[in-house]
Amino acid sequence: MSFQSFNPVPRTLMGPGPSDINPRVLAALSRPIIGHLDPQFVGMMDEIKVLLQYAFQTKNELTIPVSAPGSAGMETCFTNLVEPGDTVVVCQNGVFGMRMAENVTRCGGKLVLVEDEWGTAVDPQKLEDALIKHPEAKLVAFVHAETSTGVESDVKTLCAIAHKYDCLTIVDAVTSLGGIELDVDGWGVDAIYSGTQKCLSAPPGISPVSFNEKAVEVIKSRKTPVQSWFLDLNLVMGYWGKGEKRAYHHTAPINALYALHESLLLLKKEGLENAWARHKHHHNALKAGLEAMGLTLVVDEAIRLPQLNAVAMPEGVDEAKIRTELLSKHNLEIGAGLGKFAGKLWRIGLMGYAANEANVRLCVSSLGAELGGQSCLAGIGCVDSYYSS
Amino acid sequence: MSFQSFNPVPRTLMGPGPSDINPRVLAALSRPIIGHLDPQFVGMMDEIKVLLQYAFQTKNELTIPVSAPGSAGMETCFTNLVEPGDTVVVCQNGVFGMRMAENVTRCGGKLVLVEDEWGTAVDPQKLEDALIKHPEAKLVAFVHAETSTGVESDVKTLCAIAHKYDCLTIVDAVTSLGGIELDVDGWGVDAIYSGTQKCLSAPPGISPVSFNEKAVEVIKSRKTPVQSWFLDLNLVMGYWGKGEKRAYHHTAPINALYALHESLLLLKKEGLENAWARHKHHHNALKAGLEAMGLTLVVDEAIRLPQLNAVAMPEGVDEAKIRTELLSKHNLEIGAGLGKFAGKLWRIGLMGYAANEANVRLCVSSLGAELGGQSCLAGIGCVDSYYSS
Repeated sequence: MSFQSFNPVPRTLMGPGPSDINPRVLAALSRPIIGHLDPQFVGMMDEIKVLLQYAFQTKNELTIPVSAPGSAGMETCFTNLVEPGDTVVVCQNGVFGMRMAENVTRCGGKLVLVEDEWGTAVDPQKLEDALIKHPEAKLVAFVHAETSTGVESDVKTLCAIAHKYDCLTIVDAVTSLGGIELDVDGWGVDAIYSGTQKCLSAPPGISPVSFNEKAVEVIKSRKTPVQSWFLDLNLVMGYWGKGEKRAYHHTAPINALYALHESLLLLKKEGLENAWARHKHHHNALKAGLEAMGLTLVVDEAIRLPQLNAVAMPEGVDEAKIRTELLSKHNLEIGAGLGKFAGKLWRIGLMGYAANEANVRLCVSSLGAELGGQSCLAGIGCVDSYYSS
Repeated sequence: MSFQSFNPVPRTLMGPGPSDINPRVLAALSRPIIGHLDPQFVGMMDEIKVLLQYAFQTKNELTIPVSAPGSAGMETCFTNLVEPGDTVVVCQNGVFGMRMAENVTRCGGKLVLVEDEWGTAVDPQKLEDALIKHPEAKLVAFVHAETSTGVESDVKTLCAIAHKYDCLTIVDAVTSLGGIELDVDGWGVDAIYSGTQKCLSAPPGISPVSFNEKAVEVIKSRKTPVQSWFLDLNLVMGYWGKGEKRAYHHTAPINALYALHESLLLLKKEGLENAWARHKHHHNALKAGLEAMGLTLVVDEAIRLPQLNAVAMPEGVDEAKIRTELLSKHNLEIGAGLGKFAGKLWRIGLMGYAANEANVRLCVSSLGAELGGQSCLAGIGCVDSYYSS
């Protein structure tokens, strides 16, 4: 073998995540490593917790980054809250709801699946019907922003229904955190997980989570041990605990946490509301450009995510070929459809640092060039007028 | 809150890990992010597999980095290989053997614990006695290099005994990989996991693992699903598989893998045998310096790890105070004792990039200065003569 250092051709990342990373965050990532029990590092851990509380809009003490990707954050919620025999209602309207269902059964829980069409939001009425039918249910789980379809569901309403039937809620905020409004305490979310590589624009590999006191109580009073040692929050809390002496559990991904800290500082500086508005603003520009080219966004406007745009495949277009051309000729990555939607749509992300004017212009002009025809000029013109108005 | 960007005072890391990182690896870490399904990235994933095969000395096709720290690598082995009711023999001679035992019971396995004194190696005879007594045993697990004590156990002999009784082996190589001889295929290891932050000197957060065909067969023919979705190798194999189309499972920690790739390139360039010799060489210098200062290494020479030196606490010394002074005055981190050994010893690491002359000199002179007296000069002198001879 004669391998060389890896120096990738840079790309613009407008897929379903990871998203482009701010150079300030990359610079933080490569600062010299220090020990994970070093007082300097412990102080930074405390700051990350406070910054995550801000991002999630919560006062939950147990608000920490799990040392593994979003899927492990999902598993942290289920493996800690579900005991064998527990009934869990999962509202499923895309790939990640299916994954939640898979988690329930692997934890020995009894799954009640409430299905909605892909591309639509979770239907609160169906959830209520399921809870009436299953009064034994202990937990309700659903996805805030379905990355596979680009749909937002109504967290506040779904949580209210769950609580009416004495259930705790687990919410997937992988793609929502930092991109659209999310109010953990205001909406009554009991347990939530996210990822770093979407609207936070930090490197992938970390999953911020937050649990309120009711959820922590459930974890502390389990009858059976958490089946995962690595994700057992009873142990992880000792490592991330405040004030007290830290108990060694695992070695935190130190440099990745430098980067998360920096990306959260940037979010704090911009302000959550401004970040949400920025995503919406550039989404509007992108939408204008795509529609001027004759393309259609598949999700209804009322439930459409600005940060994840599902675009219907135009008649006769080879979707994989276009994505390959975008990547090889324009160094632009957009996403393919996932699961049921494979081959049927593109997913164009505008996440975090990648939600900016230059990216919208690049996307519309490159996609226009590859699709060909007059539509390209129409798209570019439309984006131009959007930004100059 | 008015937090600032995190710019830690640099340290020299001579604890039990993480270790100092080569600036080339830090530079790789902060290269621009690309997508995890980008052909450039997929090519790099293939290179990482080949480089890990070299480091582990194996031809195992299933040789990959798990997207989470070493503890998750441990859990990957147990959760995939152990089914409820399986009998697993764990040989325990320190903290990490205890953690293995914890993993067995959380997977529903029947634990047979073979205990050895901390600070001694796993006793092959005790393992054989246990296997004679438990002919139903399916797996044998033990630690190659116990990070809590600084002891090496005889992997080759222990594997041979396990195989004699038709058991597969799970080996913890977190602290051994890259620091001392390890020959996965030659020694007949069936499943093994390691960490990136020890002798590979990459950032923490990733766990290289390797499984041979017999182990893969066990995983593929399980009667029950793997209880962890995130760590289920039946799924992860589809993501890291060779040649075939990659199946999305989770988002790999892209930048962390850039760094691992670079650190493995450095290891390949140096050569495994040279890396092992370098660890031994600087260990000898450190040993000479410490002993000249009147300090004692607690582990017998025959089973002592060069990369993790357990030093007995001198009479009347406040061990925590000395470590604090080393950190605050000399920016030098050494490790405390863990578990039963808390307060009883220091753990001085010489791992990967940190195993070098400058670090040995810094450690001996700083420790000497803090302990005070003539011994300091003796230590420095002894290190001097070692390196000039």
